[in-house]
Amino acid sequence: MIGVDWGTSSLRAWRFGPDGAARDMREAPRGIMTVPAGGFPALLSETIGDWLAAGELRVLLCGMVGSRQGWIEAPYLSCPAGAAEIARATVPVPFEGASVRLVPGLTARDAAGVPEVMRGEETKIIGLLPEIGPGEATVCLPGTHPKWIRLQGGRVAGFATAMTGEVFSALSQHTILGRMMDLKAPHAPAAFARGLARAKGRGGLLHHLFGTRTLALMGELTEAEGASYLSGLLIGHEVAAALEAGVAPPIHLTGSAALEPRYAEALAAFGIPFRIHAPDAAARGLWHIAQEIAWS
Amino acid sequence: MIGVDWGTSSLRAWRFGPDGAARDMREAPRGIMTVPAGGFPALLSETIGDWLAAGELRVLLCGMVGSRQGWIEAPYLSCPAGAAEIARATVPVPFEGASVRLVPGLTARDAAGVPEVMRGEETKIIGLLPEIGPGEATVCLPGTHPKWIRLQGGRVAGFATAMTGEVFSALSQHTILGRMMDLKAPHAPAAFARGLARAKGRGGLLHHLFGTRTLALMGELTEAEGASYLSGLLIGHEVAAALEAGVAPPIHLTGSAALEPRYAEALAAFGIPFRIHAPDAAARGLWHIAQEIAWS
Repeated sequence: MIGVDWGTSSLRAWRFGPDGAARDMREAPRGIMTVPAGGFPALLSETIGDWLAAGELRVLLCGMVGSRQGWIEAPYLSCPAGAAEIARATVPVPFEGASVRLVPGLTARDAAGVPEVMRGEETKIIGLLPEIGPGEATVCLPGTHPKWIRLQGGRVAGFATAMTGEVFSALSQHTILGRMMDLKAPHAPAAFARGLARAKGRGGLLHHLFGTRTLALMGELTEAEGASYLSGLLIGHEVAAALEAGVAPPIHLTGSAALEPRYAEALAAFGIPFRIHAPDAAARGLWHIAQEIAWS
Repeated sequence: MIGVDWGTSSLRAWRFGPDGAARDMREAPRGIMTVPAGGFPALLSETIGDWLAAGELRVLLCGMVGSRQGWIEAPYLSCPAGAAEIARATVPVPFEGASVRLVPGLTARDAAGVPEVMRGEETKIIGLLPEIGPGEATVCLPGTHPKWIRLQGGRVAGFATAMTGEVFSALSQHTILGRMMDLKAPHAPAAFARGLARAKGRGGLLHHLFGTRTLALMGELTEAEGASYLSGLLIGHEVAAALEAGVAPPIHLTGSAALEPRYAEALAAFGIPFRIHAPDAAARGLWHIAQEIAWS
């Protein structure tokens, strides 16, 4: 079968052998934002048409391709949900010459009744499950909108999203803090650690942010260090809040090459055991979900 | 004497009688950003020249006019500091025909050694002191960068600044949150209260922010309510952190007409007694500081 992780800005496709190993992989900068209305079937054929011609009959898609802005909307599935529930909720897509289905996103409510949504991450989580096992566990997926996921009995029990990455961008580009930092400077580990340490103390994030400015004003934080300090502050506050909300260690971590080491350092700074998983969890998840689908 | 609160975007001048009552007041949109290099003496003459011609000999200036971008820099004075210390640290400014002095800003360090600065607010605080009395007290000054000030024995013992107002602007104008809110909608009190209530719960600010989006996605927060909800979230987190850091109630509150009622509501939501003070605390502070100066 073929699995495709089709997100906002890019597309990755895998061709799997019967044992679930990826035999071939393709990547293209053809995220859903680049696809004209009605253009999804043609782009899929263009990307994996030769695999289909070679005899593949099943294609499973995950990511923003199943959103309102995508090919067809695959409605959010409520938690708790595991591979079996997700497989049953996949949505068929009309396509000539193959059976194509969309993985739904997940939704949940927290204790206060505030809703949560994910789309794409559910597939990564299913991909991690065989490595994590059936017990209670916490997964952290760093990103622009990082997610903290509670697993119970091999299913997603609930999850929480933070706006950390996007808040970093907005604060560093559109507030007074950005005037005293060089956003092109390389990562400064010592400044990042100072930000993390600050986040462990009292005073709150909104106050700690102002310290980025005052330290710079007093010559105690250089322009080259400012962005790393701010990153440490924000990731530190995210981790502190996740711990306060309750996690089951070790934290299972997988994410982008740029962010994963920062989250690993943050978890270590807070004394929380963690385990880093191999990349491409989405590929493994697509294959596992496909095994549970009653393909027509 | 004459007092002038000369900030970034505007200038306000008062002519005081010998009893400290303001006899006359003038306001101009001539903040320091509008003053060309070397143009401060001319602008002061233009604004209050007739008062000087009528016999006033002493002028005290506070605010950003004493910053590096202002007339002359009045270095930050370290806390603890009261009216007497501030008066001794005022900086004389060369001016033809009157004795002109600048009020210094204040600086402090918190328990972690992170610096704090204020410029202009110290004068407001001195203006509030006669109404507050000499005991331990907490002052809250809402604004773009709101400040929480600890008073002991009639002096500023320390203070903390939050970036609440500027963070609201950056998030509402430069993140995905802004796409689902009408920033021109009038204040929505029920949505503001929902944001405050959310801030009292667990999960952290970075997670609570994402709820602004998910509530809108699910149709549970309208575009007209979004900005008020976000405002409640941010002010609620600011107040929660200030309380966690320790305050001496009642909180003494004075600020802009737009923000003061929101902070009053937030303090009430957290069950903290507060007292609202009359506006123009800067005018009263300028007069009090002037009484302590050994004018030459």
